Amino acid sequence: MADGNENGNKQEPEKRSLLNQHTESHFTSGEIVRDIIIGVSDGLTVPFALAAGLSGANAPSSIVLTAGVAEVVAGAISMGLGGYLAAKSEADHYTRELKREQEEIISVPDAEAAEVAEILAQYGLEPNEYRPVVNALRKRPQAWLEFMMKFELGLEKPDPRRALQSALTIAVAYVLGGLVPLVPYMFIPRATDAMALSVVLTLIALLIFGYVKGHFTGSKPFQSALQTTFIGAIASAAAFGMAKAVQAK
Amino acid sequence: MADGNENGNKQEPEKRSLLNQHTESHFTSGEIVRDIIIGVSDGLTVPFALAAGLSGANAPSSIVLTAGVAEVVAGAISMGLGGYLAAKSEADHYTRELKREQEEIISVPDAEAAEVAEILAQYGLEPNEYRPVVNALRKRPQAWLEFMMKFELGLEKPDPRRALQSALTIAVAYVLGGLVPLVPYMFIPRATDAMALSVVLTLIALLIFGYVKGHFTGSKPFQSALQTTFIGAIASAAAFGMAKAVQAK
Repeated sequence: MADGNENGNKQEPEKRSLLNQHTESHFTSGEIVRDIIIGVSDGLTVPFALAAGLSGANAPSSIVLTAGVAEVVAGAISMGLGGYLAAKSEADHYTRELKREQEEIISVPDAEAAEVAEILAQYGLEPNEYRPVVNALRKRPQAWLEFMMKFELGLEKPDPRRALQSALTIAVAYVLGGLVPLVPYMFIPRATDAMALSVVLTLIALLIFGYVKGHFTGSKPFQSALQTTFIGAIASAAAFGMAKAVQAK
Repeated sequence: MADGNENGNKQEPEKRSLLNQHTESHFTSGEIVRDIIIGVSDGLTVPFALAAGLSGANAPSSIVLTAGVAEVVAGAISMGLGGYLAAKSEADHYTRELKREQEEIISVPDAEAAEVAEILAQYGLEPNEYRPVVNALRKRPQAWLEFMMKFELGLEKPDPRRALQSALTIAVAYVLGGLVPLVPYMFIPRATDAMALSVVLTLIALLIFGYVKGHFTGSKPFQSALQTTFIGAIASAAAFGMAKAVQAK
C-alpha cells in the first residue's frame, strides 16, 4: 500500500517502490482463450442444432452424420481461414497507418504537434502543462510515432504469428466442439435414439464450457453456464422447427 | 498545410487553424460494416459447403434444403446471441474496471500517479517533462480516471446499444448470406442439378462480397474477392470430400 505522503514531487526510487508494492489485479484474458471460446461456442451449438433438426425430420443417422461432419469441416475452415485473413488485414492496416503517421511527422510536424496538444487537452490539461510533453516528443521521432499510433489512432502493433495461431485455434476448437454432439450418431443407427444421447452430452458440455468461459472472462460462471446452454437450446429448437417446416412442404 | 514555423510555442488559435487545415484521412470502418462482413462471410460459405457436400453424397434436394435451412437458422442464432452476450460481457468488463480505477484513484493516488509517470516515461519523457502532466491529472479526478482507462487499460466506453445492434446485424447478414446458395434447392428437385446453380450463384456472390469487403476494409478489392471465393471453394471441397467419406462407410 502507498505511504500517506501526498506530495507530487517524489523521488524516482520511491515511485518504483510504490509500483512494485501496489499490484493491481486487472483482468486480462489471453488471445488464445478468446479464440477457443469463439470456436467452441459455435462448434458446440450449430452442429448440435443441425443434427437435432435433421433427426426431428426423420433422417437416418447416416445422413445426420454426413451433414454434421460436412458442416463441422466447412465451419472450421470458414472461421479459421476467415479469422486468418482478418488478422492479416489488421496487420496490413497497422503497417499502412504507421507509414502514414511517419510521413506526417516528417512533412507536417506542426500539425502533428497540434494533434498531440489536442489529445492531451482533452484531459483538461492547460497549454503550459502539456507543452513540455509536446516539445519532448518533437525531439524523439520514434517515441512520437509510437505515441501517435497508440493515443491518436488507438492501434497496437500486432504479433505476426497471431494470424496463424488464431486461425488454427479457432478451427481446432470448432472441430472439437462439433464432435461432441455428433459422436452418438457414429454408433447409434436410429437418429432419434442418437439424438437423445446427443442432447444429454451437448447439454453437459454447454454447461461446463459456459461455466469455464464465465470464469475466464470474469463474468459470473453460473450465469454464463446458463446463458450458453440457453443459446444451444434456442438454436436447436429453431433448427428443429425449421426442419419440420421444410419437410412438411 | 502547416506554416514553416518550427517553434513549439504556438498560440492556441494558430494550432487550431493547423488542425482544421490539415485533415488526415485515416481509414475508419464502421462497426456495422464489420458485423455485416462477419455474418455474410460465414453465411455465404458454410451453408453453401454443407449443401454441396450433401448433394455430392446423393441426398435429395428436400434433405439438402432441410439441412441447409436448419443450419442457417442455428448459425444465425448462435452467432447473433453469441455476439450479443460477448458485447454485454465487454460492457460489464468496462464497468468493473472503471469502478476499480475509481477506487484506486481515491485510495492509492500515489501509486496511480506513479503509473501515469511510467506510461509517459515509456515515450522517453524525462521526469521534469511529464511531471506537470501528472500533477495536472491529480487535480482533475474525472480526467485522471479517463486517462487511466484509455492509456493504462486501453478500454473505450462501449455504446450500450451496440450489443443488440451487433447481434441483429450479424444474424440477419448470416441469414441473407445463407439464402443465396440454398434458393436453387427450393425449386430444383434433383440436388445435383440444384448444386450446379448453387455453385454459380454462390461464386458470383462470394466474388462481389469479397470485392466490397476489400473496399471497406482498405485491402486490395480484387485480392479480397479472390481470397473470399477461395475460402468458399476450400470449405465446399472439404465438405464434399468428408460427406463422400462418411457415406462410403
